[in-house]
Amino acid sequence: MAIFDMLPVKFSLFTSSMLNTSTVVAITVFVTLLCACIVIGHLLEENRWANESITALLLGLVSGGVVLLVSGGKSSRILVFNEELFFIYLLPPIIFNAGFQVKKKQFFKNFSTILLFGIIGTIISFCLISLGKIAVFTTHSLLVTPPTTPARAFLLFKRLGLTSLGIKDYLAVHIEHMKIVFAAAIGAIFSATDSVCTLQVLNQEETPFLYSVVFGEGVVNDATSIVLFNAVQSLDFSDIDVFTALKLLGTFLYLFCTSTALGITVGLLSAFGIKTLYFGRHSTDREVAIMMLMAYLSYMVAELLSLSGILTVFFCGIVMSHYTWHNVTESSRVTTKHSFATISFIAETFIFLYVGMDAVDIDQWKESSASAGTSLAVSSILFALVLIGRAAFVYPLANISNCIKRRDGDKIELRKQVTIWWAGLMRGAVTIALSYNQFSSSGTSSSTVYPLLITSTIIVVLFSTVVCGSVTQPLINAVMLRNAKPTTSDGTDFASLDDLRLLFLENGGSNDASGNQEAPRSSGFRLLMRYPTHTVHYLWRKFDDRFMRPVFGGRGFVPVVPGSPTGAADDQTS
Amino acid sequence: MAIFDMLPVKFSLFTSSMLNTSTVVAITVFVTLLCACIVIGHLLEENRWANESITALLLGLVSGGVVLLVSGGKSSRILVFNEELFFIYLLPPIIFNAGFQVKKKQFFKNFSTILLFGIIGTIISFCLISLGKIAVFTTHSLLVTPPTTPARAFLLFKRLGLTSLGIKDYLAVHIEHMKIVFAAAIGAIFSATDSVCTLQVLNQEETPFLYSVVFGEGVVNDATSIVLFNAVQSLDFSDIDVFTALKLLGTFLYLFCTSTALGITVGLLSAFGIKTLYFGRHSTDREVAIMMLMAYLSYMVAELLSLSGILTVFFCGIVMSHYTWHNVTESSRVTTKHSFATISFIAETFIFLYVGMDAVDIDQWKESSASAGTSLAVSSILFALVLIGRAAFVYPLANISNCIKRRDGDKIELRKQVTIWWAGLMRGAVTIALSYNQFSSSGTSSSTVYPLLITSTIIVVLFSTVVCGSVTQPLINAVMLRNAKPTTSDGTDFASLDDLRLLFLENGGSNDASGNQEAPRSSGFRLLMRYPTHTVHYLWRKFDDRFMRPVFGGRGFVPVVPGSPTGAADDQTS
Repeated sequence: MAIFDMLPVKFSLFTSSMLNTSTVVAITVFVTLLCACIVIGHLLEENRWANESITALLLGLVSGGVVLLVSGGKSSRILVFNEELFFIYLLPPIIFNAGFQVKKKQFFKNFSTILLFGIIGTIISFCLISLGKIAVFTTHSLLVTPPTTPARAFLLFKRLGLTSLGIKDYLAVHIEHMKIVFAAAIGAIFSATDSVCTLQVLNQEETPFLYSVVFGEGVVNDATSIVLFNAVQSLDFSDIDVFTALKLLGTFLYLFCTSTALGITVGLLSAFGIKTLYFGRHSTDREVAIMMLMAYLSYMVAELLSLSGILTVFFCGIVMSHYTWHNVTESSRVTTKHSFATISFIAETFIFLYVGMDAVDIDQWKESSASAGTSLAVSSILFALVLIGRAAFVYPLANISNCIKRRDGDKIELRKQVTIWWAGLMRGAVTIALSYNQFSSSGTSSSTVYPLLITSTIIVVLFSTVVCGSVTQPLINAVMLRNAKPTTSDGTDFASLDDLRLLFLENGGSNDASGNQEAPRSSGFRLLMRYPTHTVHYLWRKFDDRFMRPVFGGRGFVPVVPGSPTGAADDQTS
Repeated sequence: MAIFDMLPVKFSLFTSSMLNTSTVVAITVFVTLLCACIVIGHLLEENRWANESITALLLGLVSGGVVLLVSGGKSSRILVFNEELFFIYLLPPIIFNAGFQVKKKQFFKNFSTILLFGIIGTIISFCLISLGKIAVFTTHSLLVTPPTTPARAFLLFKRLGLTSLGIKDYLAVHIEHMKIVFAAAIGAIFSATDSVCTLQVLNQEETPFLYSVVFGEGVVNDATSIVLFNAVQSLDFSDIDVFTALKLLGTFLYLFCTSTALGITVGLLSAFGIKTLYFGRHSTDREVAIMMLMAYLSYMVAELLSLSGILTVFFCGIVMSHYTWHNVTESSRVTTKHSFATISFIAETFIFLYVGMDAVDIDQWKESSASAGTSLAVSSILFALVLIGRAAFVYPLANISNCIKRRDGDKIELRKQVTIWWAGLMRGAVTIALSYNQFSSSGTSSSTVYPLLITSTIIVVLFSTVVCGSVTQPLINAVMLRNAKPTTSDGTDFASLDDLRLLFLENGGSNDASGNQEAPRSSGFRLLMRYPTHTVHYLWRKFDDRFMRPVFGGRGFVPVVPGSPTGAADDQTS
């Protein structure tokens, strides 16, 4: 075959000039592994203890190990962990799809609990983990200070011409301060529940309450985490007073409201645009394309304005499933429902695969140069703090929530509290991304504490994903489903909603009826006090039917079709 | 609002540490522009002269101009043109979708014509453009040599210790050689029809013959282009003989067959996997995900093996629409059909937007430092060569094809030849990407010829896209549709296929009938001579029904549903 003799050289020349071979290899490996994950995950579907995320994680670990062996122990990095890849391309579709497919009624019914857990809970957990870490630092002098801090402080002094003054005293104070900042950063990183992990482990159909509370908490505490993370980086912890606390609260409220408003605005804009222009007339693809692009746009604009992209895209998903989705043709409905789910599914699997492969990265283990014992000790302490930090807010807050709520069915029993506590323990890719961001970009290459913290983070993530991930489903089965009493669930809610509507009508609650306008208002107020959630829901539905749906479309204002992205239960109530 | 005083600083700190702001800005701008393109394209739908690609191109030009003005004439680059982005992420979904939605019967009916145009045509065009460019170089000494070539040759000499020998003579020969290589590169870049442009301008429903020939040519000549491009870079043009030509032909056949085989293999693998494992049992998303990933995998593996990724992914799309698509659940069928089309649509729009914005990049215009006149002159010469090069193979090859074909309906009339010639003139993003690859990565920053060629390429692309793109549809209407005689189209083909089947059955063509095995074979051979296309089609369908579909699934071997990705016309024949 003399003809082909010169082929290899020529072709490799061509490829190397055209595309970066390492990129092609990396993509090929990842796509192959993704296919393998899907097939294995499908085969293990019947197995209660395994799920797609654990499969992906383990497959990532194994293939990372194989690459390590093949490359002769040099490096297992095929793709370097990239925060940009994660936050710009992988996270938005996952969160958007969660908002798009969430059971809206269940979510908003538990909204007060979600906010309580997402805001107050995260702050409590943050404080506890930070304090715990400070305590550990004080006892173990090994970990007391990032080594470069004294040097930096010294330089600062020199510039200020204060070298002759009591440097030692100042350094001590400075080190103390850095210690606090450092511990607070760890607190901020580890206090947030990973919403991606939650999605994989909890099932919206089986345990709607648990899903909406734990996942909702994960979404809301993204805003909390941003505020805390920023506070850690810019605040002076030596003089925290009431004013600073109020300032932080104001910042949080600002972030939360603007992010939510942005998401809702973009969602409504897409609904209005698609309803007015009626793209489906010519092409289904345009409708689907504009929905995808608008959803992504909401996230990017939020990031551009330094808001919480996760909150924005989540609420954009909710609004799109409530209005936009009903304005498109039927094939677009099927396509969007499944393609959003598919993209999210691929992104989730990719993330776990990625975390698994990253864990076997030999470079960072070498860099940390700590013994296996130290790594394990630090990881154990971190995980213990996560356990305690979560326990410290779930139980008290659940009981506070129980005191406020009157109806028995709304109360969070102890067994539910246990599952909420346990299901939110998982730490995943978000934690790793934040940890890389905080501990590797600091430019302190000589430091051994930073790499140690990254490796410890990886150990915590691996452990919590594998252990919590596989134990959660059996735990839920044992605690929630088998012992489940016939509590007041969705079924009775519909009934009581109908009752409420009758009640309103009996009291002349129709706003059209002129004249006795005081009576319904006061009766409405009384009802609001007695059944707050239901009254808000009823008022919202009236507002929605009268003002929103005529403008933005939605069910009832376009030809009705069976099946909705949020499932049958939602059909009657959203 | 003292509370918010410190917000901006804190937030920008956070964002800058977390995500690269310029990336976020670039993505936001592009996504917004994509949305604008879709809306404007929708509003201009009724307009015959405009289409989505021209809208995107003009919008890209305008927004590039705005950025240029805003940045004070410094730079309009928001995203630098990136070959990797183009070849790895944008091109594969477009070509895959084209294969997935192509009318298979029409495509394979014209397969001989497509191969003729794609292989021989591209070679003729390549030779003509190269020769034309050499002629231009010889007359215009300005453009004779890339300035750095003599210096390079001198260095080579020095290293070889040959400085005392007749350098001037050698340099003359070397320059002559470089000139040829240089011209040949231009030939290779400009001889390929842009399949992405073709997709935008031609309509598969209205002009199936034209679409399949021109688009098919674009797909096949990707393999031809790779071979030519490699040949240009590695061959010695001073002694081209018959053996070299045979070698090139062998290389092409190797590339063509292996690429096609790889695509078919991956497609069949996906069909077999999905049929055997039956993913739909648990989740629609897994089916859709595995189809997307396998399709992408076929392209990446082809690139990894230095084959023609475009050919591979195109045939993978054909096989997937023939087998895999019929093995999945109905909602997966709707989802894949529309989501592949949507992704392809977004990628196409993105490419044209990108080309438009790239054209206003002030840096490369400054770099080329040639007067507007020179740029225009070079572009005109290039475009004229493209015109002549295409004319030189379309008319002769069409007539050769006419001589071979006997039936009147299969013949390519003059008006069809004109539209084939015209519709294939467009040069688009592929040309730009190849041009960047060839003329900017050569490391000759001091050269003015290379930037001049890049800017000329951009002018040619803009001109051909806008002019050819807007004139093609009206031209087709004028030439093809209005004067259309009732030719033998798909309708009569179905009839004659049924006749053929009857003919086979009368002759005892059923292979099951033992005994008289010689008779049907000889009659089959006679039929093959008389109606080659139909006989091949008939034999293929028998083979397909007997061996392929039972293993890999396909229509008839899974519950039949109305609607297929290739449309109604295909239902009876594919």
